Order: sequence, then C-alpha cells, then structure tokens
Amino acid sequence: MAVAGAVVKVYGSAVSPFVATVLVCLEEAGAAYELVPVDMAARENTAPHHLARNPFGKIPAFEDGELMLFESRAISRHVLRKHYKNGGGGDLLREGDPEGAAMVDVWLEVEAHQYEPAVAEIVRHCVILPMIGAGAARDQLVVDASAGKLRAVLAAYEARLREHEYLAGGDGDDAGVSLADLAHFGFTHYLMATEYAALVEERPAVAAWWRRIAARPVAALMSWPPPPS
Amino acid sequence: MAVAGAVVKVYGSAVSPFVATVLVCLEEAGAAYELVPVDMAARENTAPHHLARNPFGKIPAFEDGELMLFESRAISRHVLRKHYKNGGGGDLLREGDPEGAAMVDVWLEVEAHQYEPAVAEIVRHCVILPMIGAGAARDQLVVDASAGKLRAVLAAYEARLREHEYLAGGDGDDAGVSLADLAHFGFTHYLMATEYAALVEERPAVAAWWRRIAARPVAALMSWPPPPS
Repeated sequence: MAVAGAVVKVYGSAVSPFVATVLVCLEEAGAAYELVPVDMAARENTAPHHLARNPFGKIPAFEDGELMLFESRAISRHVLRKHYKNGGGGDLLREGDPEGAAMVDVWLEVEAHQYEPAVAEIVRHCVILPMIGAGAARDQLVVDASAGKLRAVLAAYEARLREHEYLAGGDGDDAGVSLADLAHFGFTHYLMATEYAALVEERPAVAAWWRRIAARPVAALMSWPPPPS
Repeated sequence: MAVAGAVVKVYGSAVSPFVATVLVCLEEAGAAYELVPVDMAARENTAPHHLARNPFGKIPAFEDGELMLFESRAISRHVLRKHYKNGGGGDLLREGDPEGAAMVDVWLEVEAHQYEPAVAEIVRHCVILPMIGAGAARDQLVVDASAGKLRAVLAAYEARLREHEYLAGGDGDDAGVSLADLAHFGFTHYLMATEYAALVEERPAVAAWWRRIAARPVAALMSWPPPPS
C-alpha cells in the first residue's frame, strides 16, 4: 500500500515495467511504501542526486533506512525476504528449502534472460513509445523478430505450465506462486494490451497461468496508467 | 575438482563464459564434478536429450541427483549455497545477513544487466568467433559501440571499487569476495586477452580487483583453452 511517511521509498515511475515488479512485490508483502517520481523525460535519472542512488542511472532505486538498493530483481528479493521473515506475504523465495530456492532462481533467470529479451521490444514499440509520445513509427521488423522469439519461449513455458501450476513447480507447500512468476507482471501486463496477447491466449496453460497472476490483489492496486487499448 | 564418477554433472563446454562461471563456483566450493561436453558445433544443444536438461537449448545444464538445473547464475547460487551449508567454500551469498545478501544480489544483477551486455559483443567478435573458426570478419562498429558502453560501466565500477575491495562491499566478515565478483570471471578472462584489456588496466581500482579475482585458485584450475594472444 502506498502511504505518506512510509519507511521505504521506491524511486521511479510506475509506468516502467521494472518499477512495477518492485511494486507488485511490495503489495504482495503488504508493505508500506512511498513512490517517489523520477522525471525520465527531463533525464532526472542522469542527475547527480539520482546517480547517488543508482550509479548506472536506471530506475527503480530503493531506500530502506540506511540501505540503498537498485536493480529491480535484487530489490524484489530484498522486499520479499524481509517481509516474509517478519510475517508479511508468502514464502515467494523458498530460501528455507534448497531445492525450492534453486527452482525459483532458475525460473527468475529464465524471466530475465529468455522472456524479457523476447517481450521487451514488442512492448517498447507497441505500448511504451506511443504512450510517452515518442513519434517514431513502430519498427515492424523488430516487432516481428521479437514475436518469433517470444513464440519459442512460450512453447517451453506451455510445456512447463502443463505440468506445474506455477513456473518454479514444487510439491505441497512449495507448489504455489513465487517471485519467478511475479517478475513477469510488468511486461506481460502491457503485452496483453497489444495484438500479441494472442501469443499468450493461444497456449492454454500459459493463458491460465497469466490469469492467475493478473488476478492477484497486487494487480488491482497498481496505480500506473492503463496502456492504450 | 573435475573427477570421474562425481555426484554432480555440468553439461557444456568450458570454453563458454557461462559454463566457466559455474566451474569457478564448483572449484571455489571444493566440489567434485564431472564436465560432460555438449557439441555446440553439431547443434547437440537443440537435440531432445539436451532440451530435456534445458528447454531453452542453452549451456550449461546441471545435474545434482534428481535436481536438474539450468541458467548459470541460478546453478552458481545452488552450488555455493549447498556447499557452504556443508562446510565447503566461503559465504559467497551472505544469505544469513539480509543486508549483505541484498548487496550481493544488486551487484550480481549489475553483472548480468550492465556488465555482460557491454562486454559480450567485444568477446564474441574478438575472441569467440575467431576461436571457433567462424569466418566472418570482426564487426568493428559493433565492437566500438560495446567498448563505449563498457567504458561507462567501468567508470561506475571504479568509483565502487575505490571504496570497497569487492563489489558487494560490506564490513568485517562480509567484506570479502562474493558471487557478484566471481560471476565476472568468464567474460573478463577473455576480455583481458584483447586490446580492450586497456579499459580495465587504465582504471587502478578495477585493475587491482581483477588481479584479485584472477589470482584465486579457481582460475589456475580452469581447463578451458587459453584464448588466442
């Protein structure tokens, strides 16, 4: 829940899929936070006060008392680890179970190195650039190449999700959602507003998995603007 | 140490920087392992028996009894977590210390999303393609663009490493090397065999950090072929 005077601060714009991942984790953990805008259009992210938060000039950056963090997946791990220890949110990292933790790690890396590279250019050309008013026409060759990659990645997801309700799998108490699933939220939320939503919808297990992610309370609480329809 | 009949198996070729990262972690943990070659030239990585290990057809894949893993950084976490718990190797993930673990996570993400994208094309064009006999001439425009990115990334590293001996920083017992540093081994080992080694050498704190990484026992034990000089 975003509140004034909260302990932790997220620096960035909720419109960024990377910031969205962090917000999703904070909401999932039931944590209080303050979202502090960074004016990307004015290149505030390259100003000294932001570089002091993240020397690579990216969003989000994150402040938890004395601890300054950046990189969305690292912030997400911290948020979930801290709050689960204190009774907030579920066991979304499975750090108490070496095999469970390893499977969360594997599928979080898959999200970072297989899924995101395939989906990012579709979202950039079909949603983000039009949303921020960048005038360039959509580069359909780039979008087509990404759609081809995404189709191959989702074929592997379909096989996985036919066997497991969530990507990291597991049995019994570990069978549920994990950070590996939540990390898909930002980009997939936008993808589903484009005609390439069909790539998800045409695969029954992937489509059902996405409906489960999108139905979590976190999604309804997201304050970012809806993408153009 | 690579031994016959070892419990865990690494599938891949040591020449891959991603496989190298896993081997570095196994050596650091003092773990026994078997390296099982995957013939990339014959596209064995796309054969059904390899896709059963990694549905995305990449190397390395990893087998630890019933547990099958892939994605080099996830395998590395598993190896270090398991062996540290059993008294092998150092505390390279700092999972017992929430702040320490968060800083390891941050700089491991930096390696994945800032350093690797900057260095990978230099290594591919200047080392890997010539090494595997791919005939295409080096694309100097691509290499120049990557060198520009790498220069900017290393400027941030220099500032960080002027203040801390290793990337994840920390105090006291947590001041040492972590997975965030070791994950740089594969690509940097090759980079240092090119004229772009100067980008490291011209920054005193980065150069000293790299000498500390390269001097660890793991480096001497690496069985991959030396890059062309």
